[in-house]
Amino acid sequence: MAGSRLILALDVYERKRALEIARETADYLWAIKVNWPLIIGSGLGIITELKQVTGLPVIADLKLADIPNTNRLIAGKVFEAGADYIIAHGFPGKDSVEAVMELGETIIVVEMSHPGAKEFIQPVTDKLIALANELEPFGVIAPATRPERVAYIRSKLNEKIRILTPGVGAQGGKAGEVLRAGADYVIVGRSIYESDNPGESARLIYEESLGVWGWS
Amino acid sequence: MAGSRLILALDVYERKRALEIARETADYLWAIKVNWPLIIGSGLGIITELKQVTGLPVIADLKLADIPNTNRLIAGKVFEAGADYIIAHGFPGKDSVEAVMELGETIIVVEMSHPGAKEFIQPVTDKLIALANELEPFGVIAPATRPERVAYIRSKLNEKIRILTPGVGAQGGKAGEVLRAGADYVIVGRSIYESDNPGESARLIYEESLGVWGWS
Repeated sequence: MAGSRLILALDVYERKRALEIARETADYLWAIKVNWPLIIGSGLGIITELKQVTGLPVIADLKLADIPNTNRLIAGKVFEAGADYIIAHGFPGKDSVEAVMELGETIIVVEMSHPGAKEFIQPVTDKLIALANELEPFGVIAPATRPERVAYIRSKLNEKIRILTPGVGAQGGKAGEVLRAGADYVIVGRSIYESDNPGESARLIYEESLGVWGWS
Repeated sequence: MAGSRLILALDVYERKRALEIARETADYLWAIKVNWPLIIGSGLGIITELKQVTGLPVIADLKLADIPNTNRLIAGKVFEAGADYIIAHGFPGKDSVEAVMELGETIIVVEMSHPGAKEFIQPVTDKLIALANELEPFGVIAPATRPERVAYIRSKLNEKIRILTPGVGAQGGKAGEVLRAGADYVIVGRSIYESDNPGESARLIYEESLGVWGWS
């Protein structure tokens, strides 16, 4: 939906269920994010089907982290299947990210939300932000579970680059809080797809987020 | 083949061609490595088929780099399909790697060969080696293109952990040199699968590598 800043993390693994939930929630979403388990389970064709059923952009959350040539081969196949955006790691370096960006819209991970992210990724978040500022991808990934980090990343990031934040809902992040901190899009999974009424759950988060933009 | 230290990087993207090359070269290999483009193109079933056709272990080179729960979901599906080993990144941190190791044999990337690896990965190779020493995975990935780095990693790595080295052949690494530097397995792709006679090319590299082990 135009104006929506809500992305559904469609982390279910059966084609039929994925299409059902996508259909029920599409009215409240900006985009749908799919990841490897769904692609493995349903084949790449699920991307085309989701686009046909919902009319929404699809983000392929591949967390690509290979050498440039392999990143290029994987991204090529996934963009070809209709993905509008691919999520790639910045950690393998500039050339690996550029290989994806040459083929389509890219979203770079600059910080992650799990405990292990503190060991290698967080110590270089500033360098990953600098890489994003240099390459100017569509967006970056930052954790909704830590709004203060979203605010920090927003303060360092070129304003044209969007911030997408997973971790809203079941993982503890709050849509309103993280949007006020500077996120452009919130990514919600379990709170929607595990709900008895995914459409209604999506509508509630959509309306919560609208309130925030009303202010800004 | 027992005693072989040669791994075929089967970076072709059609099921039929993949099976053909695997069949022609199997006599000289220790294992076959597959990556995402082949899995996307042929489905996970290709892993089972390769095992049936060759009787060899299959290494799934997924370069996993997600949060623990997602790594677990992906690794679960790929081990279930018959993969004997999965390659995962260490940079997402200990918990992400452990999620894979709980499900099966794991190989951790401690260094990569492309230019971009100098930006984020090489500065933390020592920490990645320490992570491997703590977790004791089956093996680690180090670049065949730089034998001096293989020797360095070997000197720091728990001796029970194997070193697997991609980059032999077309990328410039020499099987003999990198094995003498301390690699346990060499990974060869294009020099075998792009050859007019993949079986013969595999045999030559196999024999080159045998000479080295004769010395040690």
